Amino acid sequence: MIERYTRREMARIWDDEARLGKMLEVEATFLEAIARLKGVPKAEIKALRSLVGAGALAGKVKEKEATSGHDVVALLQVVSEALEGKAPTVVQYLHYGLTSSDVLDTALALQLREAADLLIAGWKKLADSLAALAARHAGTWMVGRTHGVHAEPLPFGLKLASWHAEARRNLERLESAREKISFGKLSGAVGSYAHFPPSLEASVLKRLGLKPEPVATQVVPRDRHAEFFQALALSACAIERFATEVRHLQRTEVLELEEPFGKGQKGSSAMPHKRNPILCENLCGLARMVRGYAMAALEDVALWHERDISHSSVERIALPDATILLDFMLHRFTGVVEGLNVYAEQMRRNLDRSLGLVFSQKVLLTLIDKGLPRMKAYDVVQRAAMETWRVRKPFRDNLWLDDEVRRRLSEKELGKCFDLEAYGRSTREVLKREGIL
Amino acid sequence: MIERYTRREMARIWDDEARLGKMLEVEATFLEAIARLKGVPKAEIKALRSLVGAGALAGKVKEKEATSGHDVVALLQVVSEALEGKAPTVVQYLHYGLTSSDVLDTALALQLREAADLLIAGWKKLADSLAALAARHAGTWMVGRTHGVHAEPLPFGLKLASWHAEARRNLERLESAREKISFGKLSGAVGSYAHFPPSLEASVLKRLGLKPEPVATQVVPRDRHAEFFQALALSACAIERFATEVRHLQRTEVLELEEPFGKGQKGSSAMPHKRNPILCENLCGLARMVRGYAMAALEDVALWHERDISHSSVERIALPDATILLDFMLHRFTGVVEGLNVYAEQMRRNLDRSLGLVFSQKVLLTLIDKGLPRMKAYDVVQRAAMETWRVRKPFRDNLWLDDEVRRRLSEKELGKCFDLEAYGRSTREVLKREGIL
Amino acid sequence: MIERYTRREMARIWDDEARLGKMLEVEATFLEAIARLKGVPKAEIKALRSLVGAGALAGKVKEKEATSGHDVVALLQVVSEALEGKAPTVVQYLHYGLTSSDVLDTALALQLREAADLLIAGWKKLADSLAALAARHAGTWMVGRTHGVHAEPLPFGLKLASWHAEARRNLERLESAREKISFGKLSGAVGSYAHFPPSLEASVLKRLGLKPEPVATQVVPRDRHAEFFQALALSACAIERFATEVRHLQRTEVLELEEPFGKGQKGSSAMPHKRNPILCENLCGLARMVRGYAMAALEDVALWHERDISHSSVERIALPDATILLDFMLHRFTGVVEGLNVYAEQMRRNLDRSLGLVFSQKVLLTLIDKGLPRMKAYDVVQRAAMETWRVRKPFRDNLWLDDEVRRRLSEKELGKCFDLEAYGRSTREVLKREGIL
Amino acid sequence: MIERYTRREMARIWDDEARLGKMLEVEATFLEAIARLKGVPKAEIKALRSLVGAGALAGKVKEKEATSGHDVVALLQVVSEALEGKAPTVVQYLHYGLTSSDVLDTALALQLREAADLLIAGWKKLADSLAALAARHAGTWMVGRTHGVHAEPLPFGLKLASWHAEARRNLERLESAREKISFGKLSGAVGSYAHFPPSLEASVLKRLGLKPEPVATQVVPRDRHAEFFQALALSACAIERFATEVRHLQRTEVLELEEPFGKGQKGSSAMPHKRNPILCENLCGLARMVRGYAMAALEDVALWHERDISHSSVERIALPDATILLDFMLHRFTGVVEGLNVYAEQMRRNLDRSLGLVFSQKVLLTLIDKGLPRMKAYDVVQRAAMETWRVRKPFRDNLWLDDEVRRRLSEKELGKCFDLEAYGRSTREVLKREGIL
Repeated sequence: MIERYTRREMARIWDDEARLGKMLEVEATFLEAIARLKGVPKAEIKALRSLVGAGALAGKVKEKEATSGHDVVALLQVVSEALEGKAPTVVQYLHYGLTSSDVLDTALALQLREAADLLIAGWKKLADSLAALAARHAGTWMVGRTHGVHAEPLPFGLKLASWHAEARRNLERLESAREKISFGKLSGAVGSYAHFPPSLEASVLKRLGLKPEPVATQVVPRDRHAEFFQALALSACAIERFATEVRHLQRTEVLELEEPFGKGQKGSSAMPHKRNPILCENLCGLARMVRGYAMAALEDVALWHERDISHSSVERIALPDATILLDFMLHRFTGVVEGLNVYAEQMRRNLDRSLGLVFSQKVLLTLIDKGLPRMKAYDVVQRAAMETWRVRKPFRDNLWLDDEVRRRLSEKELGKCFDLEAYGRSTREVLKREGIL
Repeated sequence: MIERYTRREMARIWDDEARLGKMLEVEATFLEAIARLKGVPKAEIKALRSLVGAGALAGKVKEKEATSGHDVVALLQVVSEALEGKAPTVVQYLHYGLTSSDVLDTALALQLREAADLLIAGWKKLADSLAALAARHAGTWMVGRTHGVHAEPLPFGLKLASWHAEARRNLERLESAREKISFGKLSGAVGSYAHFPPSLEASVLKRLGLKPEPVATQVVPRDRHAEFFQALALSACAIERFATEVRHLQRTEVLELEEPFGKGQKGSSAMPHKRNPILCENLCGLARMVRGYAMAALEDVALWHERDISHSSVERIALPDATILLDFMLHRFTGVVEGLNVYAEQMRRNLDRSLGLVFSQKVLLTLIDKGLPRMKAYDVVQRAAMETWRVRKPFRDNLWLDDEVRRRLSEKELGKCFDLEAYGRSTREVLKREGIL
Repeated sequence: MIERYTRREMARIWDDEARLGKMLEVEATFLEAIARLKGVPKAEIKALRSLVGAGALAGKVKEKEATSGHDVVALLQVVSEALEGKAPTVVQYLHYGLTSSDVLDTALALQLREAADLLIAGWKKLADSLAALAARHAGTWMVGRTHGVHAEPLPFGLKLASWHAEARRNLERLESAREKISFGKLSGAVGSYAHFPPSLEASVLKRLGLKPEPVATQVVPRDRHAEFFQALALSACAIERFATEVRHLQRTEVLELEEPFGKGQKGSSAMPHKRNPILCENLCGLARMVRGYAMAALEDVALWHERDISHSSVERIALPDATILLDFMLHRFTGVVEGLNVYAEQMRRNLDRSLGLVFSQKVLLTLIDKGLPRMKAYDVVQRAAMETWRVRKPFRDNLWLDDEVRRRLSEKELGKCFDLEAYGRSTREVLKREGIL
Repeated sequence: MIERYTRREMARIWDDEARLGKMLEVEATFLEAIARLKGVPKAEIKALRSLVGAGALAGKVKEKEATSGHDVVALLQVVSEALEGKAPTVVQYLHYGLTSSDVLDTALALQLREAADLLIAGWKKLADSLAALAARHAGTWMVGRTHGVHAEPLPFGLKLASWHAEARRNLERLESAREKISFGKLSGAVGSYAHFPPSLEASVLKRLGLKPEPVATQVVPRDRHAEFFQALALSACAIERFATEVRHLQRTEVLELEEPFGKGQKGSSAMPHKRNPILCENLCGLARMVRGYAMAALEDVALWHERDISHSSVERIALPDATILLDFMLHRFTGVVEGLNVYAEQMRRNLDRSLGLVFSQKVLLTLIDKGLPRMKAYDVVQRAAMETWRVRKPFRDNLWLDDEVRRRLSEKELGKCFDLEAYGRSTREVLKREGIL
């Protein structure tokens, strides 16, 4: 992933040193578990552990890999050389009875869990920001829009609450995906436990905080990883939905919101007057990327026989890239929410712009309550509405010209249909239910 | 979806009549809830309910829709005309305060739940077939393959158990997706509950067995549906994995399995000798389709403002098509499993074909146990293995030519490395853990 | 594909009868080519041809297929039975030396060519409509928008011309894809020409207007079909771009365009005042579907060995569905263009809404021409622009308050920067270059 | 993209310095074109050009961008500061009347052209390797397989020739995509040529070897880039097809091919006997990635209005990543072809393994020629074939037990059906037609 979209917190989970460190953690924990059986002294395992975090593995492994073409073999060589003499029993029993995937997939689970934790924290922070903003705007009126067209009045806080609810759903998805991915596998080649029993695997994985794959092939089955990617994609789609909304509400004619615009920032190299929602546009593009990665992950499920290695190149690229991008997206959008300029007056101005048409349903229902058949009432209201578009006069006045309306309603009754506050009657209840108020 | 891949059981969930029936179910249940308030007699609601299942709605609605361009409006017109005179209060209060999406999305939830139930039943049946076959072949030896290359011995039942475990995971996913999709929404235009309170929605949805969307826009948020599609895609990928395996094991050189081949069936119009795994190939193609649908569903999440209707065309096509295909896939693959020809002797023959190389790791570990350093031991074994490929003589013999081996092992000790049964030591335990034995 | 999105013209290319007819056309043409060699009388071949178009094949073939599980074999059986006695030599030599794919893929090429022709005609019609509308609005001013924010003045005709140019590119793509797909294949099993020479294939395909696949496997290679799908997807994306624009310009605050709204049409079941861009929203959804199909087609390329049949289920579904949808999209969007309501006055009103800011670049360039360094000039103009947003006073007035501006420009020179017509200087030239004027 | 899959040749086209260099090339060429009009001395433009390639731009631009949030503005600032005093007229007129996209999209076209050239060279090299190998194996017999099952004899060279043909098609696609992407755009904000005429654009682009976009918005329309991505995806799918074939042919039971296996290479950390087709498996995974990128690119087409910037993040990531991966794939697969181990004897052994069944069609056709009706003949041959599977005796012997066969054929005539060379009659002609011989 390119630096521009990378936060250090996520990147360091995926760097070579971290990956090799996790692999050694698995090897060391395994050695601990067979230590008594094979007579591996604790001090030697400590020597092995001391290689982790020293920052010197990646370079050496890469060198060895040039010959063997196999990264696990290369790591074993590097470790063996480093511990030669110092920890002979470790050198002897390192990786004993394991196959590469035992180490790789178990280490990957550790990495994925960390990545999931970071994303979960990201969503929590964003959800909190959304809740705060929603609470603040529980009574800020704007127009609700469907099909891009004015529909009925809407408290801005309710719109934000729907984002909060979607954030919560994505939190749950990531938490669930975290569980689904927290499975390791130490059952040897082709997953047959030919060289040690399931109990040994169970004991090692327990120390690592992972669960054993119920029936592995040689690898942890890739539907787990594909499911993880689906959670990433759904998260990205959520951000895309929110960002799209900000873009819409920042358009010149609407201008109810503006994403933060830095001091000294230039909107355009040519047009000095521009303030563009580029942060949110950028987020929409990134969502496309994450969807693409998720697609590739689905194709990884159908590995051949007890495994082939076609998933590996996908995961080397897409797992870091997708988690790095989503982490960036969460962080960036949280920034947008926290710095969001909300133009409440303009919201109100836009709401008034449709000349009262947004109250049409209330008129319809009132006429029905007064005994006018629905189809008839609909026609009456639609006619007055279309006339309002045409002549640009208040909807209420157009209605009052209609005999059918006058026959059913007093002027006061008609007026009551245009009471904005009635539309907010349930807002606080919904926000409470959502845990925002 | 085309007839060829359609089972009636799923198709009827999605036909127009069923859809309109579900919509009327929602309208009727809503009327029941406001019956006391608005004075709607029970008998009238019964009259409304009697329109469902009569099989005459779809044609009439389509006719009306030609004018109004709006399917819910058309349905209301048809119902109003049908009940005119007979149930005047229903005609009066039908759809009172509702917006189309209240009805459409709630009805869709009912359809999706039925579709999910059918798919869950399909997976259960398939899982049972897999369990039975796995149990039967707990002791059937074959070679485990990684990268398409012989790896180590594997009980065929263990391979099947890994399918069973993946089936279980997909069952869970569909059960979870069923919950995620069992949300209705009766909060009116833009989701503001402007014309009736959340308590009314709660009461209607409870009768329908659905939960209320915590914070809706005008629609149930589309991340729920996208998540449902992800579950479908993961299910399809699982079938693809299994079907790919059958295809591999049916290739002429391997021929350990054959999918059922009907009496009178022709494998090729040109080559009378052919028996091809066409059922499984077909399933692989269908998995590609389901993935494609899932992709489209992800793009539906970011609807504009309180809703736009771009998701509708996707759902009209992809929801029936994807569920119909997956239902077909589950059913077809269950048939493949149940009619599968298992050639156990050929499995054994193939296992023997690699001249004992599949026991190489056991030799390696034994040499290590005897004190030979791992790297050294690896070289000894690899050398003998490569020689085996070259001269096509038993691996064991080649090993016995090696001084290093002779120095460490007796002939009997070497022989013990080639004990097949040792590789099956944990099979029954794993199958029990998986609930198969 | 569902009826709602299906035009008869495209559907009939793909129905079973048409497909079987094309297959018989291939078989008959092949028989003609070997007629002299094998002594097949012309009258008999005529009898074979007379089976096509009688509308009775599909049902019978389906019946036979239930036993043989092979559609080509079933067709051969039906034909043999129909011609038994009447055309014995045809029955004898029918399909002689051919493999199913020879017939299927060659027939498919004929279908694809027809489908492509229909789509090409659809794009031409749409391009013509766009050209006519663009010409009509060469002088209609609106604001050009980037990032959804007002940028600079733009003739509406120029926007439409960019659609026309994209239409032309897609026309080219489909014409190119039509060529790429117009390849047949009659080289027998595994494509080896074992039973007849390339010259025979050449002669048959020439009669059918197709080219021979240079090196086939048993099938025409699927990259051709995948490429065809890519052209469909790009076409769909173009319609999505145009439809998205209409949706934007129909939003209440902008309202510069409205898609046709039928007499008697209802915008909403709840809100009688609504006129929503549902046709265009629907098109955006359909574009997602076509992209999904294209994805599946890419996965069909890597067939195994000389062929497997996994592509078949994808093509049975996605080729009809994708071409039917695109055909529908082209037709529907042409209707939108032809019935488009263009509100030129509102365009002008919106253009004026940004208080002259859209001329900011012209002011910048004029200041540069007057010797003010660019960075300096940019700051001057940006400052006045931001002030304009803030105080909602004409940009020009804000500029005229700036000493730097006054030092460099006379009031008349500043005024010249706000000359709208200068922005249209090149419009006619561009439209002519594009073939519109 | 990660280093592991990156060749320097492609990476350097995309690095920041190269990108900024191309942008300055556009700015400088533009200045040359207006030099006479605006009085910009040649020496000054030379000073501007001298900034390119000095390797110092990227760092400085990044620093400036931190404030302005706009990379083009940042570049202009860096250049202005560097040339201050030295080239005052350049500083004055730099970027005069241009909008960022004029520079960015035109520079991007230059980068894309270079990337395309490298990929074209890669395909040419691979095509040459394939041609050489195909020519060498024009007479090497193997079995052709359909559905993974033995079909008819096939010269290995013919299989390779089909790869060559697909390589040629992809070459054409990339050459075509190169043309489609070689369009620049210098028409200013919203593409209206408001500040200079099309003739100026034409003159600048001509110097850069690009064509002018017929009707641009503010940007070069993104269907061009999406089309480029489709060509990349199709190329990747081709490599996937070839690599999949190698994987199949390297499986233990088949072992007709092996990809190069380095001296010192380890196939497995656990099983010393393994030689796995990991290079080809890896290529299959990478193809999934490229498909995912292509999907994202399709979503970039529908930008809003005269542009939004959502495509930018996609392109910053996916254009380098997809071209780098494809470049790597081409290079790696060329290595596989050049180092491919071809086991011709094993091919022959496998061909013989189906006991003569691969000649079944020839027997069928001969019986037809002898007057046996096709359906009848098919049954005779199928019966003998199924018996051959069952009893594992030569197909020919089973046929000779059949009365119907004996009635029609002499033993010699039957024998002629089993003549391998007859299957290769057209091979040289096809290879010549393909330009291989």
